[in-house]
Amino acid sequence: MVFDKFKEECGVFAVFNHPEAGNLTYLGLYALQHRGQESSGIVSSDWTQHHAEVGMGHVNEIFTEARIAALKGRMAIGHNRYSTHGQSLLKNAQPIAIDYARGPLALAHNGNLVNADAIKERLEREGSIFRSTMDSEVIIHLIAKSRGARLQDQVADALRQVEGAFSLVIMGAKELIIARDPYGFRPLAMGRLGKAYVFASETCAFDLIEAGYVRDVKPGEMLVINEDGIFSSFPFAPAPTHHCIFEFIYFARPDSNIFGENVHTIRKRFGRKLAQEKPVQADYVIPVPDSGVVAALGYAEASGIPFEKGIIRNHYVGRTFIEPAQSIRHFGVKIKLNPVREVIKGKSVIVVDDSIVRGTTSRKIVKMMRDAGAREVHMRISSPPTTHSCFYGIDTPTRSELIAATYSVEETARFLGADSLAYLSVEGMLSAVHERRNDYCTACFNGRYPVTTGIVESQLALLDRRPEHPVTAAK
Amino acid sequence: MVFDKFKEECGVFAVFNHPEAGNLTYLGLYALQHRGQESSGIVSSDWTQHHAEVGMGHVNEIFTEARIAALKGRMAIGHNRYSTHGQSLLKNAQPIAIDYARGPLALAHNGNLVNADAIKERLEREGSIFRSTMDSEVIIHLIAKSRGARLQDQVADALRQVEGAFSLVIMGAKELIIARDPYGFRPLAMGRLGKAYVFASETCAFDLIEAGYVRDVKPGEMLVINEDGIFSSFPFAPAPTHHCIFEFIYFARPDSNIFGENVHTIRKRFGRKLAQEKPVQADYVIPVPDSGVVAALGYAEASGIPFEKGIIRNHYVGRTFIEPAQSIRHFGVKIKLNPVREVIKGKSVIVVDDSIVRGTTSRKIVKMMRDAGAREVHMRISSPPTTHSCFYGIDTPTRSELIAATYSVEETARFLGADSLAYLSVEGMLSAVHERRNDYCTACFNGRYPVTTGIVESQLALLDRRPEHPVTAAK
Amino acid sequence: MVFDKFKEECGVFAVFNHPEAGNLTYLGLYALQHRGQESSGIVSSDWTQHHAEVGMGHVNEIFTEARIAALKGRMAIGHNRYSTHGQSLLKNAQPIAIDYARGPLALAHNGNLVNADAIKERLEREGSIFRSTMDSEVIIHLIAKSRGARLQDQVADALRQVEGAFSLVIMGAKELIIARDPYGFRPLAMGRLGKAYVFASETCAFDLIEAGYVRDVKPGEMLVINEDGIFSSFPFAPAPTHHCIFEFIYFARPDSNIFGENVHTIRKRFGRKLAQEKPVQADYVIPVPDSGVVAALGYAEASGIPFEKGIIRNHYVGRTFIEPAQSIRHFGVKIKLNPVREVIKGKSVIVVDDSIVRGTTSRKIVKMMRDAGAREVHMRISSPPTTHSCFYGIDTPTRSELIAATYSVEETARFLGADSLAYLSVEGMLSAVHERRNDYCTACFNGRYPVTTGIVESQLALLDRRPEHPVTAAK
Amino acid sequence: MVFDKFKEECGVFAVFNHPEAGNLTYLGLYALQHRGQESSGIVSSDWTQHHAEVGMGHVNEIFTEARIAALKGRMAIGHNRYSTHGQSLLKNAQPIAIDYARGPLALAHNGNLVNADAIKERLEREGSIFRSTMDSEVIIHLIAKSRGARLQDQVADALRQVEGAFSLVIMGAKELIIARDPYGFRPLAMGRLGKAYVFASETCAFDLIEAGYVRDVKPGEMLVINEDGIFSSFPFAPAPTHHCIFEFIYFARPDSNIFGENVHTIRKRFGRKLAQEKPVQADYVIPVPDSGVVAALGYAEASGIPFEKGIIRNHYVGRTFIEPAQSIRHFGVKIKLNPVREVIKGKSVIVVDDSIVRGTTSRKIVKMMRDAGAREVHMRISSPPTTHSCFYGIDTPTRSELIAATYSVEETARFLGADSLAYLSVEGMLSAVHERRNDYCTACFNGRYPVTTGIVESQLALLDRRPEHPVTAAK
Repeated sequence: MVFDKFKEECGVFAVFNHPEAGNLTYLGLYALQHRGQESSGIVSSDWTQHHAEVGMGHVNEIFTEARIAALKGRMAIGHNRYSTHGQSLLKNAQPIAIDYARGPLALAHNGNLVNADAIKERLEREGSIFRSTMDSEVIIHLIAKSRGARLQDQVADALRQVEGAFSLVIMGAKELIIARDPYGFRPLAMGRLGKAYVFASETCAFDLIEAGYVRDVKPGEMLVINEDGIFSSFPFAPAPTHHCIFEFIYFARPDSNIFGENVHTIRKRFGRKLAQEKPVQADYVIPVPDSGVVAALGYAEASGIPFEKGIIRNHYVGRTFIEPAQSIRHFGVKIKLNPVREVIKGKSVIVVDDSIVRGTTSRKIVKMMRDAGAREVHMRISSPPTTHSCFYGIDTPTRSELIAATYSVEETARFLGADSLAYLSVEGMLSAVHERRNDYCTACFNGRYPVTTGIVESQLALLDRRPEHPVTAAK
Repeated sequence: MVFDKFKEECGVFAVFNHPEAGNLTYLGLYALQHRGQESSGIVSSDWTQHHAEVGMGHVNEIFTEARIAALKGRMAIGHNRYSTHGQSLLKNAQPIAIDYARGPLALAHNGNLVNADAIKERLEREGSIFRSTMDSEVIIHLIAKSRGARLQDQVADALRQVEGAFSLVIMGAKELIIARDPYGFRPLAMGRLGKAYVFASETCAFDLIEAGYVRDVKPGEMLVINEDGIFSSFPFAPAPTHHCIFEFIYFARPDSNIFGENVHTIRKRFGRKLAQEKPVQADYVIPVPDSGVVAALGYAEASGIPFEKGIIRNHYVGRTFIEPAQSIRHFGVKIKLNPVREVIKGKSVIVVDDSIVRGTTSRKIVKMMRDAGAREVHMRISSPPTTHSCFYGIDTPTRSELIAATYSVEETARFLGADSLAYLSVEGMLSAVHERRNDYCTACFNGRYPVTTGIVESQLALLDRRPEHPVTAAK
Repeated sequence: MVFDKFKEECGVFAVFNHPEAGNLTYLGLYALQHRGQESSGIVSSDWTQHHAEVGMGHVNEIFTEARIAALKGRMAIGHNRYSTHGQSLLKNAQPIAIDYARGPLALAHNGNLVNADAIKERLEREGSIFRSTMDSEVIIHLIAKSRGARLQDQVADALRQVEGAFSLVIMGAKELIIARDPYGFRPLAMGRLGKAYVFASETCAFDLIEAGYVRDVKPGEMLVINEDGIFSSFPFAPAPTHHCIFEFIYFARPDSNIFGENVHTIRKRFGRKLAQEKPVQADYVIPVPDSGVVAALGYAEASGIPFEKGIIRNHYVGRTFIEPAQSIRHFGVKIKLNPVREVIKGKSVIVVDDSIVRGTTSRKIVKMMRDAGAREVHMRISSPPTTHSCFYGIDTPTRSELIAATYSVEETARFLGADSLAYLSVEGMLSAVHERRNDYCTACFNGRYPVTTGIVESQLALLDRRPEHPVTAAK
Repeated sequence: MVFDKFKEECGVFAVFNHPEAGNLTYLGLYALQHRGQESSGIVSSDWTQHHAEVGMGHVNEIFTEARIAALKGRMAIGHNRYSTHGQSLLKNAQPIAIDYARGPLALAHNGNLVNADAIKERLEREGSIFRSTMDSEVIIHLIAKSRGARLQDQVADALRQVEGAFSLVIMGAKELIIARDPYGFRPLAMGRLGKAYVFASETCAFDLIEAGYVRDVKPGEMLVINEDGIFSSFPFAPAPTHHCIFEFIYFARPDSNIFGENVHTIRKRFGRKLAQEKPVQADYVIPVPDSGVVAALGYAEASGIPFEKGIIRNHYVGRTFIEPAQSIRHFGVKIKLNPVREVIKGKSVIVVDDSIVRGTTSRKIVKMMRDAGAREVHMRISSPPTTHSCFYGIDTPTRSELIAATYSVEETARFLGADSLAYLSVEGMLSAVHERRNDYCTACFNGRYPVTTGIVESQLALLDRRPEHPVTAAK
């Protein structure tokens, strides 16, 4: 997956009781950079007041030594954001930091709430003023409005009113509150570093700071950490588990463990299963870097066809690129990827990627292979066709833009210009997670949405017509 | 190779007679970013005057749409720099652009001159004023001082006075001059894009702009391109060819062809040969990303041992990183690399990298493997031990810092803490380039320097003592 | 008045129905720059949504052509701020721009509310979240909470709850609301430019954009301007008029007309009256530039003593200045002011300034005169002794810092080191505004505060002891 | 003088043997800001190497605490620049700082060389490379080329080859050299601060740092200051003195003493003399601020007509201003100046300014007075008509742009729309400097150029025709 597909979601991090809480949070966010590159922020607490440093861009661009030094105190929370709800503006960067009747409050949220619009409308009617376009802000207002005696009561009160996906880190002046929705959509792990507690979306953040993994925060669990200790409760109505399987397919880093499994291991199994389900004869298995690498290794191993690094990725890409007016053909993909002609030329190749969204990038990659002299180009995708949008925190486009929502695999293959195209089956995918296969949300592949409160009917409705511009077969 | 080894050298690009010369040069420099990340610059000519845009940092950070629009004219040259001579300052960024008696002049240089200091001293005695600390500036002064009738005569006159490595692109108001030293140390290729001529350090720059490769600029060749056409001459004394073999080992991009060979193909042969020369039993072949990947693929293929992506590289690393005061162990390498514990744990692994300079990074990587649970760690290096400094454009440290200059392979293995360590032999390396094996410079592996004019005796002398701080075996 | 006295308050501007509303507001704010130099902002409305551009610093530094072009629409409001309540931070810059149940809302406020703290406490208890530390934000919350049917009803509802000084410009999606507190503390004028209505704190803003002055917005008046026309109402309880006389003494620009009078004319009368009340023999009348110039002209005319430009002001002063460690004597004042020794030397001089706050700057100026060779230095102040703090929008220090609150005129003269010191009397000051003398607030000179709701008793209490560090006579 | 007239020239500063040399130079440049606002720079010496900090803009914008701290050493030179020769670019900012055969060298120059082009051409033919378009750079090259034994010999050698105006501060590693052309065109003063020597274009710089004035550097004098002491010599051919009288008319600060006179005193005499020569009946004498203030005081005193501050100047003007598309009439002058209508209305006014260049600004000011209701507007100029360009460092436009070069006083009055216009006579002007009247250059008023070497004949030639676009009388 290269550009025009699922945009990354968010990453959260928290630390309690460490003398360098701000610096550790910075490092944690750096390790979680792949979960959001639009903005980053850290709020620390010196037990009396909060200190916030937030900016647009990458972690290493935003935080200077002076800004980290300004993050005083032994407790901090942080957030990397890629917009799943709300525009791309500094006012939408998290953590959200406010002062309210009880003092300072900061919150960082991974996931997407499905009933945020309805709650916002109600709150605004009652006189609340929203400063951002983020769904996460409704939680802040619900906390501020709650009559709960303690912050934890207010948080529980607020979260009982929202529906959808949330892995949350919330910070008062003197306490940290961690909460995860009862479905367990998004990952959230707990670790220890000496006397400090740390929390992160993925365990790769613990590796960097050399914290030990303790356990996952459980679906529906709320943890309160303060000077008296750490306290667990389950304040929400119980619900069946629905982990997001897309975390394994694309989002999470291979060196992380989430939902009790190692990402690399599961991702490789997807590739192996794909080779078994959808075999094809060829000279090489070639991954689309970096998204298809692990699955391609699995495919190569299971098929016995040599793995080859036939496409080079340029990692120096910035946010914008200045294209010449006399447009170079399929420029967009060239700026990131270039084939190794000597490898490709005259060969039959299996190109492995993790998913197809609109199909435009895959089409450019197939064209690139052919221009480099490939005799045959077989696309293999290590997930099922993405036919439905996600409402729980993955930034899929609307159904009408999803090529698999309107076209058959054969039609898609023709659009891509590939000699063959095949996807991993839903069954095959679930077989990779073994006995826990019922604990996963697969809505983006089959439309079985586990939580629908607040999702407008029309959003759920199947599109009954094809897009106006018919698909043209690649030449 | 990850951090503390050879720093990258430079990349040059030039285009003649294209309506978007500035934009193409920008794209060319972007494709050559791996050859220098310290500063970048472009100078264009509108046939009357030059327009220069130069800055510190990466190509995509420096050049905005406005700056590229300011690069008017149909001819341009560009340069990516990593200091091999001279401090890291904007005044040392190239292209060097001046006005002299004949009008505007700009120059971009890849390589290192060995007699620059002596020439500079002479010129300063005669009243010349140097504005930078770059060796390349002496060429500019020699051109300005030359009594030659045409620019090309002045350039030939100047270059006959310097010794060492140069792949040069030089631009007057109305003509482009391309020159390569008679030894052919650094690569330089010629291409065509419609009616335009393009030149680049590596062919990957042609791929991005969809230019066709024509041929390499020959060692000792000078090309003059102006409105009358393109003219070749060989104005320097003939000399034996000495291509830098390190371009294959590390510098060049795998998708480039240099010295008449594809880099990926040669690099993979290094890995294969290494497996034949230095076999070892293990569960996995694991590359140090990205430097060891291609050789590791070759090693895995030749040995039959599975290739595995056991180390993840974080590509979001910026120029500085803010380390916590309570220092995390071997922090430096952790910020870029993290092992996939589930892969490594309990396994015997062969870690493949392209070279070892000081040994400190490799030592950290071995430690990281052990911490992740590796049963055995075998280091395999796809080049011979680096025992000598380079004077032709590769930024190797002094001999006393090169671990292979003072310690045996066994001692080095002990320092790294590896179960075994083995390098590719010089013979094995040269066998990968077949019949042209005598055309390569191997001075960094055996001290046989092909050009010594101007190199101070003491620099060449073998160190006859070990460094004062004895090597400590890794625990 | 040079540095350490009253800090400037705020300026507001609004325009309705002009194709270049954003640009006119920018020019209006530029003309009002003297009323606040800490931050500036403009919000425009394109009848559907608001566009905001806000920044720290001076108008000409903040607004670029691109930022002004982004201010789309035919209606806009703007604000220059010098903090009178709330810290100096971007989040405290105005206009305040929010989205609430009715859509976009923006507000700019000149003046100070005396009961803001109590209202804020109540609102926070009810769950409101404040994002700034400005008193003006309570108005926004009161509007959002109001059950009023139309925006104007909500505004009237909100303003009936606050006490103190307000000259307000408020903008909804399609209408502009202008309001002034019933006491008329701060000025606010209405003008026309073709078909457009304009509003500004001072008429000098109309001169720059060539708008015609229509009339002042009346104390207690609320104006609603929308596509149906302009509508006036008086929704607040009637109250006696209390214009701030300090606007004439220092704040307002001499070329403005406020409260129905020209500032230059009144200020010059202060000087004339001062000469009549407190005559002294001397060679020259010398103003402290620029604060004392107009009064000094009046003094010179009435006394017949020649006016002389004996002190030069450097207008290139920036926000910070880097003082040498080996401190130059009374550096602070030197960076702005330098005497013309040839004028001062051997002469007896009357130095005229508009007011004395702490006395430290005046003391430095007297010292500077003596160092320049003055034979006698007589200070004359064109306002009465400032003995009380202001609660209506002028940033006076606390009483304990006001030199006139604790020391007699004789003691102050000794502290300054002046041969004599004399102030304009309250009677003399009021005689300058003729028959309307009862319409002015003179609380800072006599403690007769016209509005006290919400002012804490202790703030009002007279200090019954002198500051601990006794005043030392200047040498 | 407001905008479109003579642009300011340059200011220089130097200090030898002070522990805070960099900070003092910064303060000195700040006091000399009026002599150049385009760029500023400081170079310090720690006796071994130079440290340079240079930037575009105002002194207080360029120099931060960190940049001043970087200026190590006990010796420094500084420069404020307004381009008199060479484009407005950072590469043209001074001091010029280079390394040459003898080590570091830095130079700051006030004045203009008339034979720089010819010397540059010769040097370039010999192979010298110029990096800027400043005439001052030829001095650097002549020094570098000189065979002189000591730096002072090289400097004398170089300066004997140039013609024109120079007040120079030159710094080697361990010594400071100060030089002034034999005509004494530009001012240059020497002061002491404890054990340190200081030099500045004007004495107001000494006042700020509390240095004592010692004497002026004499025309034709060269001073060498090093650890052995201070040494004076006169290495140039003797020449008659030609101080620039325009320094008194406009450039220098009133609180400075130059050419042995106080600027305020001379400038006021110009006003008095003007009142005697060109009397007129009126209600008020009104200065154009700030350029006409001192002369207007003199005019008012001599005539007995009251001085009035009838025009307000806005000092917050930045470098660019964003004008509305529907252009406000004579916007340019309005952004800086606004009349006090209440003062002007119905009155007959004498508007006093220091000079008229193109006449466009004065025309706008007359219009502004009429729009404010003036009954009569009489312009009085405190210098003679400017009929010729300056070649010695004042940035006058070419003759064809000087209104007085082509039009009579009557025609000019008609163009301005003034009821009358009168200038000070050359005789009257010189009477203000008493017995030293022959020591002044008056070329800009009568074309009697004292130094013509290198001035191209055509530049000197009188224009024998009027500009093509005839002057239109103001309505």
